[in-house]
This record gives sequence, C-alpha cells and structure tokens, in this order.
Amino acid sequence: MTFMDKLRKATTDHDSQVCVGLDPDLELMPPCVMSEPNPIYTFCSEIIEHTSDIAAAFKLNFAFFEAEGLKGWQALEMLLDRIPEGVLTIADAKRADIGNSSQKYAESILQRLNFDSVTVSPYMGKDSVEPFIQWPEKGAFVLALTSNPGSHNFQHLQISARPLYKKVIKEVMKWNRHNNCGLVVGATHPSELESVRNLAPGLPFLIPGVGAQGGSLEAAVKNGTDTKGGLALINSSRGIIYKSHGSDFARAARAEVESLNRQIRALRHERDPRVEPTP
Amino acid sequence: MTFMDKLRKATTDHDSQVCVGLDPDLELMPPCVMSEPNPIYTFCSEIIEHTSDIAAAFKLNFAFFEAEGLKGWQALEMLLDRIPEGVLTIADAKRADIGNSSQKYAESILQRLNFDSVTVSPYMGKDSVEPFIQWPEKGAFVLALTSNPGSHNFQHLQISARPLYKKVIKEVMKWNRHNNCGLVVGATHPSELESVRNLAPGLPFLIPGVGAQGGSLEAAVKNGTDTKGGLALINSSRGIIYKSHGSDFARAARAEVESLNRQIRALRHERDPRVEPTP
Repeated sequence: MTFMDKLRKATTDHDSQVCVGLDPDLELMPPCVMSEPNPIYTFCSEIIEHTSDIAAAFKLNFAFFEAEGLKGWQALEMLLDRIPEGVLTIADAKRADIGNSSQKYAESILQRLNFDSVTVSPYMGKDSVEPFIQWPEKGAFVLALTSNPGSHNFQHLQISARPLYKKVIKEVMKWNRHNNCGLVVGATHPSELESVRNLAPGLPFLIPGVGAQGGSLEAAVKNGTDTKGGLALINSSRGIIYKSHGSDFARAARAEVESLNRQIRALRHERDPRVEPTP
Repeated sequence: MTFMDKLRKATTDHDSQVCVGLDPDLELMPPCVMSEPNPIYTFCSEIIEHTSDIAAAFKLNFAFFEAEGLKGWQALEMLLDRIPEGVLTIADAKRADIGNSSQKYAESILQRLNFDSVTVSPYMGKDSVEPFIQWPEKGAFVLALTSNPGSHNFQHLQISARPLYKKVIKEVMKWNRHNNCGLVVGATHPSELESVRNLAPGLPFLIPGVGAQGGSLEAAVKNGTDTKGGLALINSSRGIIYKSHGSDFARAARAEVESLNRQIRALRHERDPRVEPTP
C-alpha cells in the first residue's frame, strides 16, 4: 500500500485525524508506572492500547526515547510491535544529513524499525531528504513552518518577497515524485496555514502545536484537512498523554482523544455539512 | 575547562587540526573485523587507538551507529570510553527540535553520553539550538554552509542580498553568550570559506568535505584556521578510516592522519612562516 493510501485509510477507518504524540518524560509520567522495569515502555504501551482504535497515528518523539539511552531504544522497538496495523507510525526524529548518512538514517528508521514515516529537516536540501522518500510505501514530513518561537528566526525570512518556508514547500513539491512527501506546519501559525494549504493542495500536513503549545484547533481543521479528513494529522502530545497523573492516565488519554475527535468532527461539519457531526 | 579551551588545547597539544570522522559502515569495513562480536566497535576502537595521539578530534556520525540498532548504541557508548582525555569529541547528530525536545537531545548527548560537542541544524531557530549551548564546557557546531550538493537548495538563497547561511551565522553570533558556538562550513565551498571566516572571526569551524567529498584542503587551512591552528577542525571520514581494507586498516588510518597533519602544517607555514613546517 502506498504511503498516501495508508494515511487515508488510517484517518477514514478510525474516523480520526488525531495523531497521539508519545513524548515519554520520566519527570512527568504518573508515579504508578515508575516501579515498572521499563517505565517509558509501560507508560506508552498503555496509552497505545487505550487509544489505537480511535487515533489515526502515533508520533514517537525520538528525543525522549534517546534520553533514556539503551532502555529508551529498547522501549521504542518494543512499542512499534504494540501499534496495530492500520494506525500510521511517525518517527519524530527530525533527521537529515549528506546523502550517504541520510541513507543510513532512512534505512534505520523506515526499514529496520519499519516506521511508516519520519520527520525531516530541509536545511541541507535535496540529497539530504531524498533517501527518506525513496520508497513509495514510506513517507516523510518535511519541516516547513514549525510550531516553536524559533520558527521566526529563519523560516519567515523573505526571499524575493516570499518567506523561506514557502520556498521549502515549493522545493518539496518538486521532490514529491512518489507522492509520499508531507509537511510539518504548526497550528501556532493559524493565518499561514490557509496559504500553505493553497500552495500545497495535495500534500498531507502533520500539524503540531495544538494542546500544550496553544495552537488553534479551529485553524488546523479549517485549513489543514480536506473534507474527507485525509490530508492532515493533528498532533497533540502533552495534552493527551499527561491529561491525568493518576493510575487512570490511559483512560484519561482516551477521553482526550475522543474529545479531540468530537471537536474536529464538529469543525469539519461547520465547513462541510456532508460531514456527520457524530460518527 | 571551557569548550573553547578544550578545543585549543586539543589542537595545540596534538599539533593537529584533523578531526577523524567515524562513519562505521558494515559494507565498507575490512573483513578482518567482521567476525568480532561487535564489528563497528572493534573497527572504530582500533582506529581510535592508532590515531588519538595525533588527532585533534573524533566525530562520531550517529547515522552509522543508529543503523546497527542497539548494537550500534552500545558501540557508541563503549567507544566514548576509548577516546582519551584531551581529544575533542563531536556527536555528529544534526539534531534540533522545539525547546523541550532539544533539551532532551542535549541532556542525552552532552550530559549522559558526555560528548564535548554536537552538530545542530539551525532551521527551527533559537529555542531549538539554545539547549545545546547552555553549558560553557560543551559546544555546538551549527550547520551554516554544508558540504553536500543540496546546500544550494536553501543555504545560498538571497535574503536582502545576502545568502541565508550568512544570516544563520549572524544569528549564531548573537546566541554565542557562552563562547561555545561553532559553525559547520564545508571545504567544498572554498571561495565562501574566506568570507565566512571574516564574518565570524572568533568562531571555531568544523570543516567537512575534505577527502571522499573532494573539498579543498588548501582553502580549509588558509581560510579556516588561525595561525595557532585553534579555530578549525578539518574533518575527513572515509578518506581516513577506509584507507586500507586489509588488517592494516588502523595503521593506514594513522598514516593518513600523519599525512594530513603534514600537509596542513606546510600550508600553514606558507601563510605564516612562524609556523614550523615540521613538528
């Protein structure tokens, strides 16, 4: 199945555009998992079990796994076995290097670990991104306009009266021979989301910044998704996984995903009455 | 000791500006190490043992270690113990993410693994780089003008009549409160190296692209180093570690580092007769 088919199937089968961001932080995780042999594995595994039927994707933030050393890598490998077929997996690794090094990262993440997709930084250009988009069944979300304050340092710089991030998007569209390129566009830039959607009508967006970072869910839905909900994954990490710090953390995460699904469905219904407000 | 003191001491004590790039690739490594329990550990460990007294730095390319999964991470951790004090260690990881994720990467690489420095991608801006430069004894080499063909896609784009990479350099100089920021400037851009040196007179450069990538050693030395040889590390990876595919690979690597040291010393002598052409 191609990457785009996987993405569309994940969103339609689960009637969801929600991407659950797994950022397992020992300092924020509930006390009840801390006595487990591998707390971050247990924590994430419980979240996956309670949300995988109602979420479109899981995004594993490599920073938090690497922070735990070998135990973190073991957890990451084991968790991939816990995610059922039909939910898209995203390695949030923000990799990219010169061609032969990117090839190694791509083999490691998309082949050996067998993620469906990966986040990639564009600064080093075409040969640094190409290894990640060589397989039509695997995809890459290229950083375009990120959700953090530092996005203003370079991404908004004007090049021939257009911001750098739009130049990045134009290039990514040229590289998109296998129809497996996506873009990272932060929900913290609501006014830009619409123009990015117009610039890249067919590309899937990974939209972080909803939840703890305070981005606009409304803008993410209005400008990120198409009517079939197939072109955007709206990510929330801390807002879902740390909703409760008690032993009910996984049920609370599920309730939060359900709530996001409802809000997104209602917003899509406003925009297109053919979308049912309830599943 | 501050990062800059470590860097100066490593280059002067070893009378070398050479950074040995460790890109252990199972497909390129000599057959004699393949029967070892952890071939990439054995391979790199032999290289380190034979070169650490005449090299300024070791750069471990994370792509090649991650490609071997847990075994690769184990090798990486064990290798850090093999590198003697006084040689600078560089995690060539090209990380950067939003602030709280970059904080995790920084803790993992610079604290837990205890690297002296790390390569960092600038695209996400200030809050994505700051965690890597919070400790004065640790440094970050920020990608400015990289050695690969894709460097032309974005890094050369004109912003108010200056290329993006110069804007990156200007920002990095503002962020450099702890005097621990460096720049990655590829030897494959000889004409640009001089203007970058003029723009950032006090910043150390990590200069890749000499060797397999065909960059100019002369330009790297002329425009990268200062007369004391303290401000540039000239990296060669494949050109050193795969010099021989026989059981003499480590001795051949040493001979190549010696040869680079000699060539660099001769080039520095041409520029400044006070530099002795022989050690």
